[in-house]
Amino acid sequence: MKEKARTARADLDAVLAAGFVCHLGVVVDGTPRVVPTVYGATADTLYFHGSVATPSLVRAPHAEVCVTVTHVDGVVVARSLFEHSVNYRSAMVYGTPRPVTDEDEKLAGLRVVTEQAAPGQWEYARRPNRKELAATSLLALGLDEASVKVRTGPPDDADSLDAALGLWAGVLPLTTVRGAPVPDPALPDSIAPPAHLLRF
Amino acid sequence: MKEKARTARADLDAVLAAGFVCHLGVVVDGTPRVVPTVYGATADTLYFHGSVATPSLVRAPHAEVCVTVTHVDGVVVARSLFEHSVNYRSAMVYGTPRPVTDEDEKLAGLRVVTEQAAPGQWEYARRPNRKELAATSLLALGLDEASVKVRTGPPDDADSLDAALGLWAGVLPLTTVRGAPVPDPALPDSIAPPAHLLRF
Repeated sequence: MKEKARTARADLDAVLAAGFVCHLGVVVDGTPRVVPTVYGATADTLYFHGSVATPSLVRAPHAEVCVTVTHVDGVVVARSLFEHSVNYRSAMVYGTPRPVTDEDEKLAGLRVVTEQAAPGQWEYARRPNRKELAATSLLALGLDEASVKVRTGPPDDADSLDAALGLWAGVLPLTTVRGAPVPDPALPDSIAPPAHLLRF
Repeated sequence: MKEKARTARADLDAVLAAGFVCHLGVVVDGTPRVVPTVYGATADTLYFHGSVATPSLVRAPHAEVCVTVTHVDGVVVARSLFEHSVNYRSAMVYGTPRPVTDEDEKLAGLRVVTEQAAPGQWEYARRPNRKELAATSLLALGLDEASVKVRTGPPDDADSLDAALGLWAGVLPLTTVRGAPVPDPALPDSIAPPAHLLRF
């Protein structure tokens, strides 16, 4: 089995650091709701962005949530369809999130979320004013309760009877790539993208 | 607002057709659980793969689920951090899934799931035998109850006071690309990847 639960803290950190969109699971009237939202992680806390327009996020502070971050690395093509699989890295974080109300912590948390999606923007763009800060919902979830699963490598049926079938087997890799920045059409030509966005 | 709920059936089909990994939300002992799993969609049904090893999937047939498929297309960089956003396409499908028990439907459903992740493999690889079929958990969820949200385009603050700040604004595009097939190291050199995988 090349699919493994990982228990090292570094594995959790690596999966969380590799993305900025999570799937937030909440229970609304007894039924599950899964919504994508942006997040950022520090050493001990996962901050995620809410919106007062999303009822599930308004309810989230009062109940347990499950935040899942998944990176799909490839399709595992085996000799048999039964052994077909996916190479992936996934982290689930459980707990009851805490709404961030303190202004300083909110700014610090938003900085973490922003920097994870677009490093350098916190120093470059206009920071939230008081009104915007009040209109922004930010939740904090401890990283104490988490699980990580990772699958890597080739299919599992190389030493099975199916190897004699003479079929190709391996991995079809998938990668997320970042393209060149696309300027807002409303932007004057004189404004070039800053260096930190070209490195992105 | 460039973020929009889409109500056309074609929008749902397009989001579901563009991926093969969903986030499945279930309620376990009153708390949410969100797990990544593979899926495939027909005109009226979303089939998703379960595993008898995953307790949440064993419980899923008895309760409502929420299946969410999200594609992240870019980071929206605005003049103000408040207007930073994400371009994405996301579909949520709700309902009570039906465990697929009929052998013919199970084969048909597995074919849909397989072909969505690795088109051409159903005809090429060894199909599941009776024992494997029995060991495979497949769930079917109707597409009647679904919602789609899509955000595209530049940031929303081109005509705000912040435009005068002279800051760059636009989109940092993200794309998932498929790499060349990586052969299983155990594979004899004489077995080349079949044409349908080179097209993948």
